[in-house]
Amino acid sequence: MDQRPADIEGLIALMARLPGLGPRSARRAVLHLLRKRVQVMEPLAQTMQQVAERARECRVCGNIGTDDLCAICADPARSSDQICVVEDLSDLWAMERAGGFKGRYHVLGGTLSAIDAIGPDDLRIPHLVARIADEAVQEVILALNVTVEGQTTAHYIAEALAPSGVGISALAQGVPMGGELDYLDDGTISAALAARRRL
Amino acid sequence: MDQRPADIEGLIALMARLPGLGPRSARRAVLHLLRKRVQVMEPLAQTMQQVAERARECRVCGNIGTDDLCAICADPARSSDQICVVEDLSDLWAMERAGGFKGRYHVLGGTLSAIDAIGPDDLRIPHLVARIADEAVQEVILALNVTVEGQTTAHYIAEALAPSGVGISALAQGVPMGGELDYLDDGTISAALAARRRL
Repeated sequence: MDQRPADIEGLIALMARLPGLGPRSARRAVLHLLRKRVQVMEPLAQTMQQVAERARECRVCGNIGTDDLCAICADPARSSDQICVVEDLSDLWAMERAGGFKGRYHVLGGTLSAIDAIGPDDLRIPHLVARIADEAVQEVILALNVTVEGQTTAHYIAEALAPSGVGISALAQGVPMGGELDYLDDGTISAALAARRRL
Repeated sequence: MDQRPADIEGLIALMARLPGLGPRSARRAVLHLLRKRVQVMEPLAQTMQQVAERARECRVCGNIGTDDLCAICADPARSSDQICVVEDLSDLWAMERAGGFKGRYHVLGGTLSAIDAIGPDDLRIPHLVARIADEAVQEVILALNVTVEGQTTAHYIAEALAPSGVGISALAQGVPMGGELDYLDDGTISAALAARRRL
Protein backbone atom coordinates (compact mmCIF):
# COMPACT_ATOMS: atom_id res chain seq x y z
CA MET A 1 0.00 0.00 0.00
CA ASP A 2 2.65 2.45 1.04
CA GLN A 3 4.91 4.03 -1.50
CA ARG A 4 7.52 5.10 0.98
CA PRO A 5 11.07 3.93 0.26
CA ALA A 6 12.27 1.03 2.40
CA ASP A 7 14.88 3.21 4.14
CA ILE A 8 12.25 5.63 5.35
CA GLU A 9 9.94 2.78 6.43
CA GLY A 10 12.87 1.25 8.31
CA LEU A 11 13.63 4.53 10.03
CA ILE A 12 10.01 4.84 11.18
CA ALA A 13 10.03 1.24 12.48
CA LEU A 14 13.24 1.83 14.43
CA MET A 15 12.08 5.15 15.86
CA ALA A 16 8.85 3.46 16.99
CA ARG A 17 10.95 1.22 19.26
CA LEU A 18 12.04 4.16 21.40
CA PRO A 19 10.21 4.57 24.70
CA GLY A 20 7.45 7.16 24.51
CA LEU A 21 7.13 6.86 20.74
CA GLY A 22 4.56 4.68 19.03
CA PRO A 23 4.01 4.13 15.30
CA ARG A 24 2.15 7.44 14.92
CA SER A 25 4.59 9.61 16.78
CA ALA A 26 7.53 7.86 15.12
CA ARG A 27 6.00 8.79 11.76
CA ARG A 28 5.62 12.39 12.89
CA ALA A 29 9.21 12.45 14.10
CA VAL A 30 10.47 11.05 10.79
CA LEU A 31 8.39 13.58 8.84
CA HIS A 32 10.04 16.28 10.91
CA LEU A 33 13.47 14.80 10.16
CA LEU A 34 12.71 14.66 6.43
CA ARG A 35 11.56 18.26 6.43
CA LYS A 36 14.58 19.46 8.38
CA ARG A 37 17.21 17.30 6.77
CA VAL A 38 20.10 19.71 7.12
CA GLN A 39 19.18 21.38 10.40
CA VAL A 40 18.04 18.30 12.36
CA MET A 41 18.46 14.93 10.63
CA GLU A 42 22.10 15.26 9.60
CA PRO A 43 23.41 16.45 12.98
CA LEU A 44 21.25 13.88 14.79
CA ALA A 45 22.38 11.00 12.59
CA GLN A 46 25.99 12.05 12.95
CA THR A 47 25.86 12.48 16.73
CA MET A 48 24.05 9.18 17.18
CA GLN A 49 26.64 7.42 15.07
CA GLN A 50 29.42 8.94 17.17
CA VAL A 51 27.75 7.95 20.42
CA ALA A 52 27.03 4.46 19.08
CA GLU A 53 30.70 4.07 18.20
CA ARG A 54 32.16 5.60 21.32
CA ALA A 55 29.75 4.70 24.14
CA ARG A 56 31.10 2.08 26.51
CA GLU A 57 30.77 0.99 30.11
CA CYS A 58 33.27 2.45 32.54
CA ARG A 59 35.54 -0.41 33.55
CA VAL A 60 35.38 0.67 37.20
CA CYS A 61 31.78 1.64 37.91
CA GLY A 62 29.66 0.53 34.93
CA ASN A 63 28.52 4.08 34.13
CA ILE A 64 28.22 4.65 30.38
CA GLY A 65 30.52 7.25 28.91
CA THR A 66 32.72 7.66 25.91
CA ASP A 67 35.96 6.57 27.53
CA ASP A 68 37.29 3.49 29.19
CA LEU A 69 37.08 5.35 32.49
CA CYS A 70 33.95 7.49 32.92
CA ALA A 71 34.05 11.23 33.66
CA ILE A 72 33.05 10.66 37.29
CA CYS A 73 35.67 8.00 38.01
CA ALA A 74 38.27 10.11 36.19
CA ASP A 75 37.42 13.27 38.15
CA PRO A 76 39.97 13.78 40.95
CA ALA A 77 37.54 16.14 42.70
CA ARG A 78 35.12 13.26 43.35
CA SER A 79 35.81 11.53 46.62
CA SER A 80 36.67 7.86 46.49
CA ASP A 81 35.57 7.47 50.12
CA GLN A 82 31.93 6.97 49.20
CA ILE A 83 30.41 4.67 46.61
CA CYS A 84 26.75 5.07 45.71
CA VAL A 85 25.25 1.83 44.40
CA VAL A 86 22.48 2.28 41.81
CA GLU A 87 20.48 -0.18 39.74
CA ASP A 88 20.80 1.50 36.43
CA LEU A 89 22.33 4.34 34.44
CA SER A 90 19.05 6.26 34.70
CA ASP A 91 19.35 6.21 38.49
CA LEU A 92 22.92 7.52 38.29
CA TRP A 93 21.70 10.37 36.10
CA ALA A 94 18.88 11.08 38.56
CA MET A 95 21.35 11.20 41.49
CA GLU A 96 23.57 13.59 39.51
CA ARG A 97 20.60 15.80 38.67
CA ALA A 98 19.71 15.97 42.35
CA GLY A 99 23.31 16.99 43.03
CA GLY A 100 24.84 16.86 46.48
CA PHE A 101 26.66 13.55 46.10
CA LYS A 102 30.38 14.05 45.64
CA GLY A 103 31.54 10.44 45.70
CA ARG A 104 31.61 7.79 43.03
CA TYR A 105 29.10 5.27 41.74
CA HIS A 106 28.64 1.62 41.11
CA VAL A 107 26.01 0.68 38.52
CA LEU A 108 24.64 -2.83 39.11
CA GLY A 109 22.88 -3.18 35.78
CA GLY A 110 19.62 -4.42 37.29
CA THR A 111 18.29 -6.19 40.35
CA LEU A 112 18.28 -9.75 41.59
CA SER A 113 15.26 -11.56 40.26
CA ALA A 114 14.31 -15.17 40.81
CA ILE A 115 11.66 -15.02 38.10
CA ASP A 116 14.04 -13.69 35.45
CA ALA A 117 16.87 -15.90 36.78
CA ILE A 118 19.12 -12.92 37.47
CA GLY A 119 21.65 -13.84 40.14
CA PRO A 120 24.49 -11.84 41.76
CA ASP A 121 26.92 -12.86 39.00
CA ASP A 122 24.64 -11.39 36.34
CA LEU A 123 24.88 -8.02 38.06
CA ARG A 124 28.07 -6.18 38.95
CA ILE A 125 27.95 -7.42 42.56
CA PRO A 126 31.18 -9.49 42.61
CA HIS A 127 32.82 -6.48 41.00
CA LEU A 128 31.51 -4.28 43.84
CA VAL A 129 32.81 -6.66 46.51
CA ALA A 130 36.24 -6.64 44.84
CA ARG A 131 36.17 -2.87 44.59
CA ILE A 132 35.48 -2.46 48.32
CA ALA A 133 38.40 -4.77 49.07
CA ASP A 134 40.76 -2.87 46.74
CA GLU A 135 39.83 0.77 47.16
CA ALA A 136 39.89 2.73 50.43
CA VAL A 137 36.10 3.04 50.63
CA GLN A 138 34.56 4.33 53.85
CA GLU A 139 30.87 4.11 53.04
CA VAL A 140 28.64 2.33 50.56
CA ILE A 141 25.32 4.12 50.00
CA LEU A 142 22.64 1.84 48.63
CA ALA A 143 20.44 3.99 46.39
CA LEU A 144 18.29 1.20 45.01
CA ASN A 145 14.67 1.66 44.06
CA VAL A 146 12.12 1.10 46.82
CA THR A 147 10.63 -1.93 45.12
CA VAL A 148 10.64 -5.56 46.21
CA GLU A 149 13.48 -6.34 43.78
CA GLY A 150 15.48 -3.24 44.72
CA GLN A 151 15.19 -3.90 48.43
CA THR A 152 15.98 -7.61 48.06
CA THR A 153 19.09 -6.66 46.12
CA ALA A 154 20.05 -4.05 48.75
CA HIS A 155 19.69 -6.68 51.47
CA TYR A 156 21.85 -9.13 49.53
CA ILE A 157 24.58 -6.54 48.96
CA ALA A 158 24.58 -5.49 52.61
CA GLU A 159 25.20 -9.11 53.59
CA ALA A 160 27.86 -9.59 50.94
CA LEU A 161 29.73 -6.51 52.13
CA ALA A 162 29.36 -7.18 55.87
CA PRO A 163 32.69 -9.09 56.19
CA SER A 164 34.60 -6.13 54.73
CA GLY A 165 33.55 -3.92 57.63
CA VAL A 166 32.72 -1.00 55.30
CA GLY A 167 29.98 1.38 56.43
CA ILE A 168 26.69 0.69 54.64
CA SER A 169 23.76 3.08 54.40
CA ALA A 170 20.60 3.46 52.37
CA LEU A 171 18.57 6.44 51.16
CA ALA A 172 15.99 7.59 53.72
CA GLN A 173 12.40 6.60 53.13
CA GLY A 174 9.57 8.99 53.90
CA VAL A 175 7.18 11.59 52.57
CA PRO A 176 8.48 13.08 49.28
CA MET A 177 8.78 16.84 48.74
CA GLY A 178 5.34 18.28 48.07
CA GLY A 179 3.82 15.00 49.19
CA GLU A 180 0.26 15.18 50.49
CA LEU A 181 -0.60 12.43 52.95
CA ASP A 182 -4.02 11.91 51.44
CA TYR A 183 -2.41 10.91 48.12
CA LEU A 184 0.41 8.79 49.52
CA ASP A 185 0.32 5.02 49.68
CA ASP A 186 0.12 3.34 53.10
CA GLY A 187 3.61 1.89 52.85
CA THR A 188 5.20 5.32 52.50
CA ILE A 189 3.22 6.71 55.43
CA SER A 190 4.14 3.74 57.62
CA ALA A 191 7.80 4.06 56.68
CA ALA A 192 7.78 7.80 57.36
CA LEU A 193 6.12 7.21 60.73
CA ALA A 194 8.64 4.53 61.72
CA ALA A 195 11.54 6.78 60.70
CA ARG A 196 10.08 9.90 62.38
CA ARG A 197 12.62 12.33 63.74
CA ARG A 198 12.45 14.40 66.90
CA LEU A 199 12.24 18.16 66.30
CA MET B 1 26.68 19.82 37.32
CA ASP B 2 26.22 16.99 34.86
CA GLN B 3 28.99 14.54 34.26
CA ARG B 4 27.61 13.20 31.00
CA PRO B 5 29.98 13.31 28.05
CA ALA B 6 29.32 16.11 25.57
CA ASP B 7 28.33 13.63 22.85
CA ILE B 8 25.58 12.15 24.99
CA GLU B 9 24.38 15.61 26.07
CA GLY B 10 24.33 16.63 22.41
CA LEU B 11 22.31 13.57 21.48
CA ILE B 12 19.74 14.35 24.18
CA ALA B 13 19.50 17.97 23.02
CA LEU B 14 18.97 16.91 19.40
CA MET B 15 16.40 14.24 20.29
CA ALA B 16 14.51 16.83 22.35
CA ARG B 17 13.95 18.80 19.13
CA LEU B 18 11.78 16.06 17.65
CA PRO B 19 8.03 16.62 17.83
CA GLY B 20 6.43 14.80 20.74
CA LEU B 21 9.69 14.58 22.68
CA GLY B 22 10.67 17.06 25.39
CA PRO B 23 13.84 17.15 27.47
CA ARG B 24 12.59 14.39 29.80
CA SER B 25 11.43 11.97 27.14
CA ALA B 26 14.53 12.67 25.04
CA ARG B 27 16.60 11.66 28.05
CA ARG B 28 14.59 8.47 28.43
CA ALA B 29 14.98 7.70 24.74
CA VAL B 30 18.75 8.24 24.92
CA LEU B 31 18.98 6.03 28.03
CA HIS B 32 17.19 3.35 26.05
CA LEU B 33 19.62 3.81 23.16
CA LEU B 34 22.61 3.57 25.50
CA ARG B 35 21.25 0.41 27.07
CA LYS B 36 20.49 -1.19 23.70
CA ARG B 37 23.52 -0.01 21.80
CA VAL B 38 23.81 -2.98 19.47
CA GLN B 39 20.12 -3.85 19.04
CA VAL B 40 18.70 -0.33 18.68
CA MET B 41 21.22 2.51 18.58
CA GLU B 42 23.54 1.16 15.90
CA PRO B 43 20.82 0.22 13.38
CA LEU B 44 18.97 3.48 14.07
CA ALA B 45 22.09 5.61 13.62
CA GLN B 46 22.99 3.79 10.45
CA THR B 47 19.51 3.98 8.93
CA MET B 48 19.20 7.64 9.80
CA GLN B 49 22.55 8.37 8.21
CA GLN B 50 21.46 6.55 5.05
CA VAL B 51 18.17 8.43 4.88
CA ALA B 52 19.93 11.72 5.58
CA GLU B 53 22.30 11.07 2.71
CA ARG B 54 19.77 9.73 0.24
CA ALA B 55 16.53 11.62 0.94
CA ARG B 56 15.66 14.16 -1.71
CA GLU B 57 12.66 15.88 -3.22
CA CYS B 58 11.16 14.26 -6.28
CA ARG B 59 11.90 16.60 -9.18
CA VAL B 60 8.36 16.19 -10.51
CA CYS B 61 6.03 16.26 -7.53
CA GLY B 62 8.07 17.35 -4.48
CA ASN B 63 7.42 14.10 -2.58
CA ILE B 64 10.44 13.02 -0.55
CA GLY B 65 12.02 9.74 -1.51
CA THR B 66 15.45 8.35 -2.04
CA ASP B 67 15.63 8.88 -5.80
CA ASP B 68 15.49 11.77 -8.17
CA LEU B 69 12.03 10.55 -9.20
CA CYS B 70 9.84 9.34 -6.31
CA ALA B 71 8.29 5.86 -6.18
CA ILE B 72 4.84 7.23 -7.02
CA CYS B 73 5.94 9.26 -10.06
CA ALA B 74 8.06 6.31 -11.21
CA ASP B 75 5.20 3.81 -10.85
CA PRO B 76 3.66 3.14 -14.30
CA ALA B 77 0.54 1.76 -12.59
CA ARG B 78 -0.29 5.19 -11.17
CA SER B 79 -2.46 7.21 -13.51
CA SER B 80 -1.08 10.51 -14.76
CA ASP B 81 -4.62 11.75 -15.47
CA GLN B 82 -5.17 12.94 -11.93
CA ILE B 83 -2.94 15.09 -9.76
CA CYS B 84 -3.74 15.46 -6.09
CA VAL B 85 -2.37 18.70 -4.65
CA VAL B 86 -1.36 18.53 -0.97
CA GLU B 87 0.28 21.02 1.33
CA ASP B 88 2.90 18.81 2.80
CA LEU B 89 4.57 15.41 2.77
CA SER B 90 2.52 14.41 5.82
CA ASP B 91 -0.69 14.98 3.84
CA LEU B 92 0.62 12.84 0.98
CA TRP B 93 1.33 10.05 3.46
CA ALA B 94 -2.15 10.45 4.95
CA MET B 95 -3.76 10.19 1.48
CA GLU B 96 -1.71 7.06 0.75
CA ARG B 97 -2.71 5.52 4.09
CA ALA B 98 -6.35 6.14 3.26
CA GLY B 99 -5.75 4.42 -0.09
CA GLY B 100 -8.15 4.75 -2.99
CA PHE B 101 -6.24 7.40 -4.92
CA LYS B 102 -4.44 5.96 -7.91
CA GLY B 103 -3.13 9.14 -9.51
CA ARG B 104 -0.07 11.24 -8.75
CA TYR B 105 0.67 14.04 -6.34
CA HIS B 106 1.94 17.55 -6.18
CA VAL B 107 3.39 18.68 -2.85
CA LEU B 108 3.19 22.44 -2.43
CA GLY B 109 5.49 22.70 0.55
CA GLY B 110 3.15 24.91 2.58
CA THR B 111 0.35 27.41 2.11
CA LEU B 112 0.17 31.00 1.04
CA SER B 113 0.55 33.28 4.02
CA ALA B 114 0.60 37.06 4.05
CA ILE B 115 1.87 37.12 7.65
CA ASP B 116 4.82 34.84 6.94
CA ALA B 117 5.37 36.47 3.53
CA ILE B 118 4.91 33.20 1.66
CA GLY B 119 3.82 33.87 -1.91
CA PRO B 120 3.07 31.53 -4.82
CA ASP B 121 6.72 31.48 -5.89
CA ASP B 122 7.78 30.20 -2.45
CA LEU B 123 5.51 27.19 -2.94
CA ARG B 124 5.55 24.81 -5.88
CA ILE B 125 2.65 26.61 -7.55
CA PRO B 126 4.44 27.82 -10.75
CA HIS B 127 5.75 24.27 -11.02
CA LEU B 128 2.18 22.94 -10.81
CA VAL B 129 0.96 25.33 -13.51
CA ALA B 130 3.81 24.22 -15.79
CA ARG B 131 3.06 20.59 -15.04
CA ILE B 132 -0.58 20.96 -16.05
CA ALA B 133 0.51 22.59 -19.30
CA ASP B 134 3.04 19.83 -20.07
CA GLU B 135 1.37 16.64 -18.91
CA ALA B 136 -1.96 15.27 -20.11
CA VAL B 137 -3.74 15.91 -16.81
CA GLN B 138 -7.53 15.59 -16.71
CA GLU B 139 -8.26 16.54 -13.13
CA VAL B 140 -6.54 18.38 -10.31
CA ILE B 141 -7.84 17.38 -6.88
CA LEU B 142 -7.15 19.99 -4.25
CA ALA B 143 -6.63 18.11 -0.98
CA LEU B 144 -5.60 21.07 1.13
CA ASN B 145 -6.33 21.37 4.81
CA VAL B 146 -9.66 22.97 5.71
CA THR B 147 -8.01 25.96 7.36
CA VAL B 148 -8.05 29.60 6.32
CA GLU B 149 -4.58 29.27 4.79
CA GLY B 150 -5.36 25.98 3.06
CA GLN B 151 -8.58 27.27 1.55
CA THR B 152 -7.00 30.56 0.47
CA THR B 153 -4.27 28.58 -1.26
CA ALA B 154 -6.84 26.28 -2.89
CA HIS B 155 -8.72 29.31 -4.19
CA TYR B 156 -5.53 30.83 -5.59
CA ILE B 157 -4.57 27.59 -7.33
CA ALA B 158 -8.04 27.17 -8.81
CA GLU B 159 -7.74 30.65 -10.34
CA ALA B 160 -4.21 30.05 -11.57
CA LEU B 161 -5.26 26.83 -13.29
CA ALA B 162 -8.53 28.16 -14.72
CA PRO B 163 -7.00 29.24 -18.10
CA SER B 164 -5.68 25.71 -18.68
CA GLY B 165 -9.21 24.31 -18.74
CA VAL B 166 -8.22 21.35 -16.53
CA GLY B 167 -10.91 19.90 -14.25
CA ILE B 168 -10.50 21.07 -10.68
CA SER B 169 -12.09 19.47 -7.64
CA ALA B 170 -11.66 19.51 -3.88
CA LEU B 171 -12.18 16.98 -1.10
CA ALA B 172 -15.75 16.92 0.20
CA GLN B 173 -16.44 18.64 3.49
CA GLY B 174 -18.83 17.17 6.00
CA VAL B 175 -19.23 15.04 9.08
CA PRO B 176 -16.17 12.78 9.63
CA MET B 177 -16.52 9.02 10.16
CA GLY B 178 -17.61 8.35 13.70
CA GLY B 179 -18.41 12.05 14.06
CA GLU B 180 -21.02 12.92 16.67
CA LEU B 181 -22.84 16.13 15.92
CA ASP B 182 -22.77 17.19 19.55
CA TYR B 183 -18.98 17.25 19.46
CA LEU B 184 -18.55 18.84 16.03
CA ASP B 185 -17.85 22.51 15.50
CA ASP B 186 -20.53 24.68 13.94
CA GLY B 187 -18.55 25.21 10.74
CA THR B 188 -18.45 21.50 9.98
CA ILE B 189 -22.15 21.08 10.64
CA SER B 190 -23.02 24.07 8.43
CA ALA B 191 -20.78 22.76 5.63
CA ALA B 192 -22.30 19.29 5.89
CA LEU B 193 -25.79 20.77 5.78
CA ALA B 194 -24.99 22.91 2.74
CA ALA B 195 -23.48 19.91 0.93
CA ARG B 196 -26.29 17.53 1.95
CA ARG B 197 -27.06 14.82 -0.55
CA ARG B 198 -30.41 13.40 -1.52
CA LEU B 199 -30.86 9.74 -0.54
